[in-house]
Order: sequence, then C-alpha cells, then structure tokens
Amino acid sequence: MKIKIKKDLLLEGLNKVSRAISTKNLIPILSGIKFDLSLEGLTLTASDNDITIQTFIPIENDNMYIEKEGSIIIQGKYILDIVRKLPDEYINIEVIDELKILIYAENSEFNLNGINKKEYPNISLENSKTFVKINNKVFKTLINQTAFATSNDESRPILTGINIKITGDILECSATDSYRLSKKQVKIDNVTNENYNIIIPGKNITEFIKILNDNNNDLEIHIFNNKVLFKQENLLFQSRLVSGNYPNVNNLIPNDSFLKVTANLSDLYDVIDRASILTSDKEKNIVTLETNKNVLIVKSSSAEIGRVEEKMIISKDNDEEIKISFSAKYMMDALKSFEGDMVEMLFVGEVKPIIVKDVEDPNLIQLVLPIRTY
Amino acid sequence: MKIKIKKDLLLEGLNKVSRAISTKNLIPILSGIKFDLSLEGLTLTASDNDITIQTFIPIENDNMYIEKEGSIIIQGKYILDIVRKLPDEYINIEVIDELKILIYAENSEFNLNGINKKEYPNISLENSKTFVKINNKVFKTLINQTAFATSNDESRPILTGINIKITGDILECSATDSYRLSKKQVKIDNVTNENYNIIIPGKNITEFIKILNDNNNDLEIHIFNNKVLFKQENLLFQSRLVSGNYPNVNNLIPNDSFLKVTANLSDLYDVIDRASILTSDKEKNIVTLETNKNVLIVKSSSAEIGRVEEKMIISKDNDEEIKISFSAKYMMDALKSFEGDMVEMLFVGEVKPIIVKDVEDPNLIQLVLPIRTY
Repeated sequence: MKIKIKKDLLLEGLNKVSRAISTKNLIPILSGIKFDLSLEGLTLTASDNDITIQTFIPIENDNMYIEKEGSIIIQGKYILDIVRKLPDEYINIEVIDELKILIYAENSEFNLNGINKKEYPNISLENSKTFVKINNKVFKTLINQTAFATSNDESRPILTGINIKITGDILECSATDSYRLSKKQVKIDNVTNENYNIIIPGKNITEFIKILNDNNNDLEIHIFNNKVLFKQENLLFQSRLVSGNYPNVNNLIPNDSFLKVTANLSDLYDVIDRASILTSDKEKNIVTLETNKNVLIVKSSSAEIGRVEEKMIISKDNDEEIKISFSAKYMMDALKSFEGDMVEMLFVGEVKPIIVKDVEDPNLIQLVLPIRTY
Repeated sequence: MKIKIKKDLLLEGLNKVSRAISTKNLIPILSGIKFDLSLEGLTLTASDNDITIQTFIPIENDNMYIEKEGSIIIQGKYILDIVRKLPDEYINIEVIDELKILIYAENSEFNLNGINKKEYPNISLENSKTFVKINNKVFKTLINQTAFATSNDESRPILTGINIKITGDILECSATDSYRLSKKQVKIDNVTNENYNIIIPGKNITEFIKILNDNNNDLEIHIFNNKVLFKQENLLFQSRLVSGNYPNVNNLIPNDSFLKVTANLSDLYDVIDRASILTSDKEKNIVTLETNKNVLIVKSSSAEIGRVEEKMIISKDNDEEIKISFSAKYMMDALKSFEGDMVEMLFVGEVKPIIVKDVEDPNLIQLVLPIRTY
C-alpha cells in the first residue's frame, strides 16, 4: 500500500471512524483503524464489535495519488494524533515489508508497527434488499429530541435503547426510562412499504448523530434481524440491535386532559432552572408547579438551605387549577427538545403524567411523570 | 442589612471572592461568603484559611441603593447560582430576623438560611507599613511564565511554592520542581528599598493571577512574616507563605555554554510536539534532540509502537554539535512561556541543563534538565 493524500481529507475520515475505536481494548486489534486502498480510493474502518463505522474517500482530481493498492491496520490513537499535528498539505503513507508503516511529510517521518489485515474481524456491512429513506436533518433532529430519555440502567436493557417503529410511511421514535418519555413521528420514504419495529442502543445512535451531516440529503436505513446499517453518501454506520419487545408507549400517553397551560418556552425553562437551584441531587431536583389564574408559580424548598418561589405569566384553556411536583431536571431535558417559542403543558391529574408539546408541532410529545411529595 | 444592587456588579464580585471558598468543607462556615454592607458600599469576603479574597463595591450613581447596613454570611454555592441565573438588572437582598436572607427580583423570591457574622473567623487584611509596587500586567505575565515549574509533590513543600526575592528595585521570581527551572527578573518600584525573600504557594498565586486585572495600573504587595497581601484597587488577596529557605537557583544556572542554537519558537514547539506523539506517559515523553550543521533533528522511539524523526532548520553560533535527551512535556511547557518569535537554546553538555531564552529578552530563563537514555 502506498498513497499520498490530502491531510484535511484523511483527518476528516479518521475523526469519523475513530468514534468506533474500542477504548476498553478487550480485543487489542479493535484499537486499530483498517486502511483499505484500491484504485478507486481509500476505505477506513473501525469497530468495537458493538458499532462499526466505515468511510470511503474516493479519488478525485488531486485529492490523492495512489501508487500501490493494499491494506493495513494502524493503531487509531497514534495515526489520528500524527495526522492532526502534521502541518503539511499532503501526507504520504506507505507499507514496507508488509507490517511496517512509513508516514512522512516534508520534515517529518513516522515509522509505526502495523497489524496484518488478516487479523481484523470480518464484519459484513452489506445492504439489505429493502431499506427506508429519511432526510438527514430530519433524522438528526428526531434523535436529538428523543434519545436523551433512554435509561442508563443496564439491568433493563430494553429501556437503554430507542424504539423505531416504521408503519407504511410513518416512522415513530420513542425513548423512555420509565420516569419520562419522548416520542416523535415523522414521514419517510418507505420504498417497499415493509413494517419494522426495532430497538437501537441509545448510546450508539447518539454516536452516529454526531458524525451525521445535517444536510438535506437522504439517509438510508437498512434493517436486519440483529443489526441496523445507516448509509449516508460515503459513510456507513452499523449498530447491533437490542433484542426484546419494547413497551407500547402509546398506552402510556393520556388521551384527555382537564387543563392546558400555554407558556413561553425559554421563560418556562428559566423559571424551572432557578426554582431548582436550592434542590440538591439527592432530592431528585423536585420542584412544585402550581397555577393561580394566569400566573404560573414554581417552588422548591429544603429545610437546611431555604426556599424559592418563581412566577411567570401563562395562558390557560379554562378555569381549572393544577398543583403538581416533578423532577426539574427531567422537565428541563424535555423543554430543551423543542424548537418553537411556545409550548403547551397538558395536565391530566396530580398523579398523572404531564404532557408537553410544541404549540405548532403535534408530532413531538414529551411526557414527565409527577413525583408525590407527601 | 438591606440593599438593591446591580446584578452584573454583584456577580462580578461574587465570581472573584468565590475562588477562595473551601470545597473541602472542613470548616462549614468557610463555604459561605461574608456580606458587609456599610453606607460606603458592599464588601464581600471569602476564605479557606489558606487564601482570603475580599472585594469592595463602592456606592456610585445608581449601582446600588442601601437601605440598611449590616452583615451576614450566605452559602457561596447558592448565592452565586442565584445571582448568575436571575435575569433582572437589579437584585434585592434583605436580612430578616437576623438570620433569614430574602433575595428577590421582579418574579423571583429566594429565602435562604444565613449564618451569623460572629461565627466567621476573624481574618486580618491590614496593610503592612512598607510595600512594593508592580504593574499588574507585568506581574501577571511574570507569574504565568514561571509558576508552571513549581512541584506538585507535597513531600518537599518548599518546591510547591514560587520564590520571590526583592533586592532594591529588582524582583526575581523563581520556580523549580528540581527537573526544570523558571526564573524571571523585573524592575519594580520599591518605596522603602527594603529587601524580601519569600515563598508563595504555587496554586495560591495561580488563583490570584486568574482574578487580577491585566491593566497598566499598579499592584501593591504587602509582605509579612507568614503571609502576603496583594492589593489591587478594590480587590484584596491574601495568602499564607511557605516557611523555609528556598534553594539558591542562581547556582544551578550554568554561566557558559559551548553551543547556542537559535530557532523559530513555534516551529520548535511543533517539532517537539510531533516527536513526542509516540512516547507514552510512563516513558516521561523522552525525545532526543540532535544537531547536524544547520538542521535540528528531534527523535523518539518505542519498541512496541514505532519511531519518529522530525527536522527543522536552525542557526548555530559555531560548528559544535549536540545530542541530548529530555522530557518533551517539560521543554514544551518552557517554550510556551515565551512571547517572541525566536528562542535560543544554550547547551553546556550532554548531561548538563539546557538553557532556553527569548532572543530579545534576557530576563526570562527556562532550564530543562536532560535525561540519560543509556
């Protein structure tokens, strides 16, 4: 293998795939990045057995000069640091005696020990026969608005994942840790009209979102029995799936409410934020919200520290009043997911979930469970 | 105590003094900030018994409205968060029933439990009869260029401090952890011409530098037997001193060298940075520098990982050559302290300290000890 390649291009590719590098190092070879050079371009692959990321840099004009095809595994940590710190426009990479890697630029020369490609696990990144298509930006927003509600508790693995349900041209994404719930529906382009219901590990999909371009192109989602492959232009991202049945979250969302409160999103966020200053983590940041005509009051108190009372103007759809307590952190997480200026909170009862929605977008629903304080 | 005060002004003061708040909480009252309100203005004080910070906000135009003088101790963590998060231009603070603190703004009301001022330790922040004066900016630069070389090893407390020696109108600042040494001399205004030789804990002086304005006004240094008080306009910063005799660092600095290498500072930094990519922490980031006519070569190697060779053009004052090994991290720390474009490295021998200086400024000296690699 011998190539001269533009530094910025190589760095961009390495930054993407290196997110899959195993830090736990249970299998030493997985701390490496696989370089596969063909006459068409350079393919970079990294995997931690849970996720696999592959990017292909096609040859174009003067972006690379390929002298000899070949493959090698290079330690991810070092190659990333070397490429990041070299000041040159082009970097040369050459494999000598099969396992010696020579990386050089004008005034720099690195000799690294490589690993034979035969030792790298054989990871299939094939397309499925059928797939669905979704706009990159729409998908990125969808995940950002829901994935935070997944659980970190490995004792219930299903809740550590997000649920993606595809029925016809509707994709529904849900996440819940059993204390709060996020759900969003979007329209997609489902070529074959097949239906799917899968659970993707929350931390994996969050990693993917970080490297996904948020342009208006389409992302392909290829779904298999035990894995999912995302395909965006020259980027492939594959994750295992969580096995099991995801709870039917639609049963958890109340259909009717006795009171709808409409509030300015950023004011509501700030009021809850300030009301929770005196609550400590061990008390779960509990605040109490109550309405009094068109005034919303958010309170909290702690015997040792003191108490807070915050007020803001809201509008209501009727004369009913509510008094309800909840985790300020969970409510603030939920509020952060909205993009509009105004949100509505729907109250079903003092011990029933609070539904939060954007006034203008019914497709995103956030649910926060109340906490009994007596 | 009752005051209405501009939020930004109060926040600025709280941010300064809160750096002294004890996080260890050995003495609970030291996690509080002391408010002293007189008709002249508001004084804020915080201390962890090691350092004490006090700032005075004088009454001016409409920056505050004082309704009632008084004193109270408020939990530092909460008052800082409250003031930071309130959106209002003015904040009201009122002490009710001696120990209840009411903090309020237009839509917010906080009731905090205060602590009686009698319980706060009595810390003297008096001036000494004599003091020295130094330009703020000059002092800030001086400390930033030297304090990094102090030791973190508490078993030799003297080396965890920086040494400040004042002889006539010369202030000499030194720091060493016995592997490297930083020394700088500046001219000062010493009114009484008294001489001083003190050791200030490195982490304390570093905290002070963070809140010191780098304007062209003067800083007063009041030196006592066991403490030092810095006074800048309305800011007081007091630190204990380390007791003991600081080593005479001038004995450690070689007077003659057999070779002077002059190099571009940022190129030299980058070359050493890249040469150390493959060295791991356990190997102390050792790199080897050698000259070959007007080429400087920096190398490192590790049996498992590989080897690097970096080159750059330099100029020398004679035909001698040098080959010497040192810690890349220590050399990079030293190089970061220079502000000019060109530095010179003076070589005394393969096992003798390397002297690094700015080509145009003889007042700052960095010394890095070599490491034997055979």
